[in-house]
Amino acid sequence: MSRQQRDALDALLRSAPRAETPPTPEEQREGFAAALTRPAPDGVVSRRTVLGGRPALELDPDTASGPGRLLYLHGGGYVVGSPDTHAGLAGELARRAGLRAVSVDYRLAPEHPFPAAVDDGLAAYRELLSTGTDPRDLVLAGDSAGGGLGIATLLAAREAGLPQPAAVALFSPWADLTLAGGSIRSKEGADPIFTGADVRAYADLYVGAGDRAAPLASPVFADLAGLPPLLVQAGANEVLLDDAVRLAGRAGADDVEVTLEVGPGLPHVYQLHYGRLEEADAALDRAARFLTAHLSAGRPDADRLAPVR
Amino acid sequence: MSRQQRDALDALLRSAPRAETPPTPEEQREGFAAALTRPAPDGVVSRRTVLGGRPALELDPDTASGPGRLLYLHGGGYVVGSPDTHAGLAGELARRAGLRAVSVDYRLAPEHPFPAAVDDGLAAYRELLSTGTDPRDLVLAGDSAGGGLGIATLLAAREAGLPQPAAVALFSPWADLTLAGGSIRSKEGADPIFTGADVRAYADLYVGAGDRAAPLASPVFADLAGLPPLLVQAGANEVLLDDAVRLAGRAGADDVEVTLEVGPGLPHVYQLHYGRLEEADAALDRAARFLTAHLSAGRPDADRLAPVR
Repeated sequence: MSRQQRDALDALLRSAPRAETPPTPEEQREGFAAALTRPAPDGVVSRRTVLGGRPALELDPDTASGPGRLLYLHGGGYVVGSPDTHAGLAGELARRAGLRAVSVDYRLAPEHPFPAAVDDGLAAYRELLSTGTDPRDLVLAGDSAGGGLGIATLLAAREAGLPQPAAVALFSPWADLTLAGGSIRSKEGADPIFTGADVRAYADLYVGAGDRAAPLASPVFADLAGLPPLLVQAGANEVLLDDAVRLAGRAGADDVEVTLEVGPGLPHVYQLHYGRLEEADAALDRAARFLTAHLSAGRPDADRLAPVR
Repeated sequence: MSRQQRDALDALLRSAPRAETPPTPEEQREGFAAALTRPAPDGVVSRRTVLGGRPALELDPDTASGPGRLLYLHGGGYVVGSPDTHAGLAGELARRAGLRAVSVDYRLAPEHPFPAAVDDGLAAYRELLSTGTDPRDLVLAGDSAGGGLGIATLLAAREAGLPQPAAVALFSPWADLTLAGGSIRSKEGADPIFTGADVRAYADLYVGAGDRAAPLASPVFADLAGLPPLLVQAGANEVLLDDAVRLAGRAGADDVEVTLEVGPGLPHVYQLHYGRLEEADAALDRAARFLTAHLSAGRPDADRLAPVR
């Protein structure tokens, strides 16, 4: 355990200045990009493209071989963030998994409220399938709002009659816009990034007066039956911890293969701190292994019987 | 996925005859032993011993090297089961982990109600430490009631000022004797083994008129702070699914490193069906890797800093 690394990260995150007056969405986006952006890692070539009618960033690692593809959905409360801010995180996951990735610049609130992001996620997923990607070769990943959006995208795909991908990995998914999780309050002191009010402000901008418990906005309330194997990673020091726990519980109850990992002393989307935090690197390696294991498991010849001993 | 294996197991479990009149505890123990007992696997030498004043079964796999030890607590609703009925399961885990194991014949209800089993678990744990086992070389595992008992044992050890072991792996832990989990009802049709009434009958025999929400009886209600890294595996087809989910959630909330794995279509303690069910072998392999990874991680020199890239 990297106790020193965790403590240093916690102090760093707490040191971020808080604006006196609420910033505009555009100011929030600039601040978020300045604080979080990490470039695509060495060995990963990034290329601008269009997917499902939206700008997107292709991330091609030199470790990639075979047909496997990764669809990535970035976080940022449905209000901030972009494929550029998350080129490092998505690129690291792609590199470790040996998968060509594409990260979608889905539309953001408040200019484009719910369900614009879900529409864009589904359009991207649909185009990947329609241009020849075998769903058994396709995995999905996302962080924070991108985690909730990832599940919403797959629910929308299910409703549209599209096949599911091989696996999904989520980092600190935001999956309950009603903020009903107990950790919203119980972890407010432990969370170095968010208060409940911060998260509520994002929900206000994304859903407004709409139904915050709608399954495509808050997949903790959705029927998740038919979704592919799911990995959920979260930090113990985040107000959104119970989003991860309840999403995993919901998945298990709906007969979905699910693994939940909670890391002590860790903040929201701690995987962003790869290369500086031991747990981040270990978590990304586990996520990469999980995704690639299910890619090969999705092949017909993997449905073999175990030998009886 | 071994769909055929899962379906065959489900049918087999459902075919078990149900007694017309409630069997006595002794009849229950005989029936349980006849139905579930599997011997220690090839390559694992078993030997009778005494630990903490109770009979115990040592299981020494020929794969064992080094000082690592595994303390195993069998399941059976605190009423049935023994180290002999679980020699196969405990032995398989020991063999795959390369650890010498000892499985304790803790006292059973109704002859010895709560907290007799916890007292015996603590006495066994205490003797392992007092006879020279380094807690960093010690891991704990248990299934069903033995899973809840494992957590209770570590809580009792914490209260007694004893150090914690390196890691814990639980298969379908029974961790809420109040039966407050939603799966008690929602999974009654899916569970091929238990109804809520079956589980309640065990709680009646173990706790009687006592406090079923006491932390050492129902660790889902305990403060789990200070416990070691925890792996919880459960099947999606069991009335006790929410015990696993809530125990993992509680652990995360209390800043304990925790991994929860839910397998679709799988019954209570599906790991018992190793060698016949692909998911059982895979789960035992993951549990073995989890336990041994934390054994080495518990060494002082493993607290190294990751290189900054």
